[in-house]
Amino acid sequence: MIAEKITRRLGSSSLIRAMFEEGEKLRKIYGKDKVYDFSLGNPDLEPPQAVKDTLKKLILEDVPDLHKYMSNAGFADVREKVASHLSRENGIPLSPENIVMTSGAAGGLNVILMTLLDPDQEVIVFSPYFVDYLNYIENFGGKAVIVPTNKDTFEPDPELLKTSITPRTKAVIINSPNNPTGVIYSEEVLKRMARVLEDKEKEYNTTIYVISDEPYNRLVFDGFKVPGILKIFKNSLLVNSFSKSLALPGERIGYIAASSAIDNVSLLINGLIYVSRVLGFINAPSLFQKVVAESLEVAVDTEIYRERRDILYNHLTELGFSCVKPHGTFYLFPKSLIEDDGEFVRRAMKYNLLFTPGKGFGCPGYFRIAYCVSMETIKNSLPAFEALAKEFKG
Amino acid sequence: MIAEKITRRLGSSSLIRAMFEEGEKLRKIYGKDKVYDFSLGNPDLEPPQAVKDTLKKLILEDVPDLHKYMSNAGFADVREKVASHLSRENGIPLSPENIVMTSGAAGGLNVILMTLLDPDQEVIVFSPYFVDYLNYIENFGGKAVIVPTNKDTFEPDPELLKTSITPRTKAVIINSPNNPTGVIYSEEVLKRMARVLEDKEKEYNTTIYVISDEPYNRLVFDGFKVPGILKIFKNSLLVNSFSKSLALPGERIGYIAASSAIDNVSLLINGLIYVSRVLGFINAPSLFQKVVAESLEVAVDTEIYRERRDILYNHLTELGFSCVKPHGTFYLFPKSLIEDDGEFVRRAMKYNLLFTPGKGFGCPGYFRIAYCVSMETIKNSLPAFEALAKEFKG
Repeated sequence: MIAEKITRRLGSSSLIRAMFEEGEKLRKIYGKDKVYDFSLGNPDLEPPQAVKDTLKKLILEDVPDLHKYMSNAGFADVREKVASHLSRENGIPLSPENIVMTSGAAGGLNVILMTLLDPDQEVIVFSPYFVDYLNYIENFGGKAVIVPTNKDTFEPDPELLKTSITPRTKAVIINSPNNPTGVIYSEEVLKRMARVLEDKEKEYNTTIYVISDEPYNRLVFDGFKVPGILKIFKNSLLVNSFSKSLALPGERIGYIAASSAIDNVSLLINGLIYVSRVLGFINAPSLFQKVVAESLEVAVDTEIYRERRDILYNHLTELGFSCVKPHGTFYLFPKSLIEDDGEFVRRAMKYNLLFTPGKGFGCPGYFRIAYCVSMETIKNSLPAFEALAKEFKG
Repeated sequence: MIAEKITRRLGSSSLIRAMFEEGEKLRKIYGKDKVYDFSLGNPDLEPPQAVKDTLKKLILEDVPDLHKYMSNAGFADVREKVASHLSRENGIPLSPENIVMTSGAAGGLNVILMTLLDPDQEVIVFSPYFVDYLNYIENFGGKAVIVPTNKDTFEPDPELLKTSITPRTKAVIINSPNNPTGVIYSEEVLKRMARVLEDKEKEYNTTIYVISDEPYNRLVFDGFKVPGILKIFKNSLLVNSFSKSLALPGERIGYIAASSAIDNVSLLINGLIYVSRVLGFINAPSLFQKVVAESLEVAVDTEIYRERRDILYNHLTELGFSCVKPHGTFYLFPKSLIEDDGEFVRRAMKYNLLFTPGKGFGCPGYFRIAYCVSMETIKNSLPAFEALAKEFKG
């Protein structure tokens, strides 16, 4: 009755659903506060006070036309503010015409891929990856080409990138700070990747777009800085979302910024705007366009996340877990204590610990801890981690 | 550089864009208030006070979790309220599990079509139609089959529907009250259509879904009632939006309600929820889910639209225009005074009158007047209509 393709895809997406339902069951038996649910990337923090104040101000002042249609690309004044913010941050000129406001990063990525992909073109994705990248690519008949990252750093290997590019390569998706590893790709690695892409574009006479998905680019610790991809890659599209940085995931608000250096960038942008309309997004939600335009320099208190990372990271490494130390996001991606990460995650449930197995990110043998839960939950969970480690390490 | 398909589709969408740019040019020359722009379906009314009050209340009370992720189908309490509202209105039982909150009707329609369509399956669309239906169908490899309505009433002809159905027919889109005609399909016609569908489903051993796009179902005049399609068609999906009824088009909020009578409806709904996620909508904007859940019985003051319709309809028919009298929406769809509606609309611009040609709705020889503009604009435009009629009628 429903499309064959969707029936098939639904079948393969049932693992995570089964996981979630297992968690619900545990919560019912043991009570919500006795279950340590590290499985979901749903920020527990409230939006920053400045965001709440802006929202309140817009509503109380009853600003006219706040809820009306605007250009499919978004309000002109909002795009103006995003463009000058990005110009300042990246040290490159960017005009409002280069900005398309989107329904979050997921909306933006779908819009970009539908705009770019002809059937059977390839999109390179580095593993571990956010699993829905594969779905977004499949939506528009593209073919995901998975390239593993270096396991010591979880950064891409430019040499491996080089051998993965074919004449059909249309785009490369990068995600730094990364979900699930929390790793920030270094400027050096990114620059080497840029040289590889330029060489291959010349060799094949093609254009390869770099789609940089950066919802975590303000959730960074230890003074690290996320290198600005618009300056590093000629054919770059930055996709951002305020879901994590402003803790507004339910509101579906983000943007695409297309580099001015792209050849014929206005055709590309017309394509993005057209696709935003015909794919049914029409425009990014209007009230929150205005809210985020006033909140571009704001972020949730990253110290809260850093403290949580420190406690968990230190506890886990003391218990013998092997884990690349992340400098951003709210994820840890340690090695599983047995090869079968699915089995490991299932056995962790005995201790009311809920994780996501690494194979859900195309990286078996690891598991993801999403620490966007309260410090209380984290502290209460520490003995459970101990018991878990003991079961495997004896 | 961008997909061939999108380049081609962009090309054919340039007529309306050209129209819009022409309007902008006129506004610059003559001033905004001297241009009578009846070309856009962008509600000029502000949201009802009750909606603004609800919004204010939610913000001021700082309700927790207002901006967080929830189930991809939407907040459970919101779906509960929508379901009981629809059950009451339609006299049929509907559970929250039958509701998926969406990013407006455009988002809902894309989600439904991606869920249903295998390549080359057919979707019947009645002309005149909202032009993006064709785009939504094409997005997922479907084939739109255009069936003209009866020109005297702009209602579908069940006999013509019958001869248009093939073994590949997967769905029929209906839109009542209709954009662009303003016509409400009668219960009698809809029931005859239901019988045709049942017969054909038996003949071909298929399921044909009726997708009823009803963003105008609360903008109804003269005591008319929109027949409840969930009761009339077994395999029916109702798609609604609050863009017009609550004047919230920028906020992208609506829902899908799937009839409980559909065989294996839970698989269909799982498909809709899955597609909402992977197509990048994730969930309908969270704050406005809560707002509309408190506003299901509310609508903008339809008397304002009725008065405008009366003035324009009476003036036009007095001037010799032929027009089916609409009982809903904020559109009139009169016959063009010459066969070439494109040329007619171009010549109307001389009088600073902006319309959309009927061929944009698959119905040449007509033009659409969108009277979601102020009464002042309407009154000021009346002499321009006179001058226009005089040019053609002498």
